[in-house]
Amino acid sequence: WQLQHVDESPRLVKKYQCQQFADAMLLANQIGNIAELEKHHPRLVIQWGWVQVSWWTYRQQGLTEMDFIMAARCDELAERSAG
Amino acid sequence: WQLQHVDESPRLVKKYQCQQFADAMLLANQIGNIAELEKHHPRLVIQWGWVQVSWWTYRQQGLTEMDFIMAARCDELAERSAG
Repeated sequence: WQLQHVDESPRLVKKYQCQQFADAMLLANQIGNIAELEKHHPRLVIQWGWVQVSWWTYRQQGLTEMDFIMAARCDELAERSAG
Repeated sequence: WQLQHVDESPRLVKKYQCQQFADAMLLANQIGNIAELEKHHPRLVIQWGWVQVSWWTYRQQGLTEMDFIMAARCDELAERSAG
């Protein structure tokens, strides 16, 4: 995960490589599902070959523990998809 | 739709407002489905409250008829979702 600043607020950002567009959509949906369950929502960018995920906490204009938890869970989902 | 240039290549770009993150995911999936059927894939950005869609033709580094067709079909999907 990389730390990026958007409008001076930090975000956790990672790009997952995917074989096909459909794989990228699938991973985005899996991430969307855990986001809905936790009521904590990322920015997702889907393009041929990859999904980029960004986490931050809007009400803090920064990062909270939840962002790091969600980032770790994305890694788990991506590993399972790849495996 | 707006014409935007990325790396000097034109793209058709539009942002659809959605009530909830789940609505944004749903519209993104509907667009992803027609993209798979036509084997012509957009860039999708999903965030709380909206989906942004970009169309261009990679092998032309520009716009083709297919991009305009896909843009029109996105509008149909978005109207149906909203209706």
